[in-house]
Amino acid sequence: MADEAPFQFLHNELIQYIYKSAENVEAENGRNITKLENMGFRIGQGLIERLTKNTARFKDELDIMKFICKDFWTSVFKKQIDNLRTNHQGIYVLQDNNFRLLGQLSAGKQYLEQAPKYLAFTCGLVRGALSNLGVKSIVTAEVSIMPACKFQVMIQKM
Amino acid sequence: MADEAPFQFLHNELIQYIYKSAENVEAENGRNITKLENMGFRIGQGLIERLTKNTARFKDELDIMKFICKDFWTSVFKKQIDNLRTNHQGIYVLQDNNFRLLGQLSAGKQYLEQAPKYLAFTCGLVRGALSNLGVKSIVTAEVSIMPACKFQVMIQKM
Repeated sequence: MADEAPFQFLHNELIQYIYKSAENVEAENGRNITKLENMGFRIGQGLIERLTKNTARFKDELDIMKFICKDFWTSVFKKQIDNLRTNHQGIYVLQDNNFRLLGQLSAGKQYLEQAPKYLAFTCGLVRGALSNLGVKSIVTAEVSIMPACKFQVMIQKM
Repeated sequence: MADEAPFQFLHNELIQYIYKSAENVEAENGRNITKLENMGFRIGQGLIERLTKNTARFKDELDIMKFICKDFWTSVFKKQIDNLRTNHQGIYVLQDNNFRLLGQLSAGKQYLEQAPKYLAFTCGLVRGALSNLGVKSIVTAEVSIMPACKFQVMIQKM
């Protein structure tokens, strides 16, 4: 548990900082989400480069998604994605039943509206990782019961 | 190496973000350093609380410093402090011969002037950890040859 704490804590401070430095909270919310998403994107790019340095070439899109669910997720969150589903037409749903960056929020419905800002960074992370593997995508996240979380990846055909 | 990368990358992005959002770089530098130091402080407080949850009570100040050098440092940077020295009058020097947050900077003298912004967060981290253990301190850092780094802790007697 203590192992991923520095990362988690830093992530929380970052959110606080970005939100605090924005003046008008209502109007700025969208912009803050974008900032977090962009940071995630760049970090995702950097991380995937390191992780794939010595791996074999990926067979296909599904092979790439499996790598994201296993190796990539483990390197950041110290656990794998619990469930990967796909419609085989470019949509993938990654489900994490105990998403670490939501772990410090109370599990009730009370903080559900706070969830998006804790997910934006990770959406960017996945999008950045995929982008560096040559896969253009749109990544969104959805929470119904904390701390479980679903990330939906829509592959953009080029 | 990949293990601490998410933390490192996030730390770098944070620095970039704080510096980019400041308008006048010259004038803002001191304030940015303070922001980073404050974030480190709060994270240090949180981390030490987790880490000491099940440890025995510390014998004395030196015992606390040893804990910082070993357990605390390992939890954040995946390595121990390489050398701890003290004058037995409240000054401690913690030397890390391969400080991880400087690891991505080129090792020459070229970027020496960039070093302070990569150290401020960690100074705060140590100060926050000590503060939650009831030790008030001033922490400064100094780099002579990258990526080696010395942190000087001056205990403030109360």
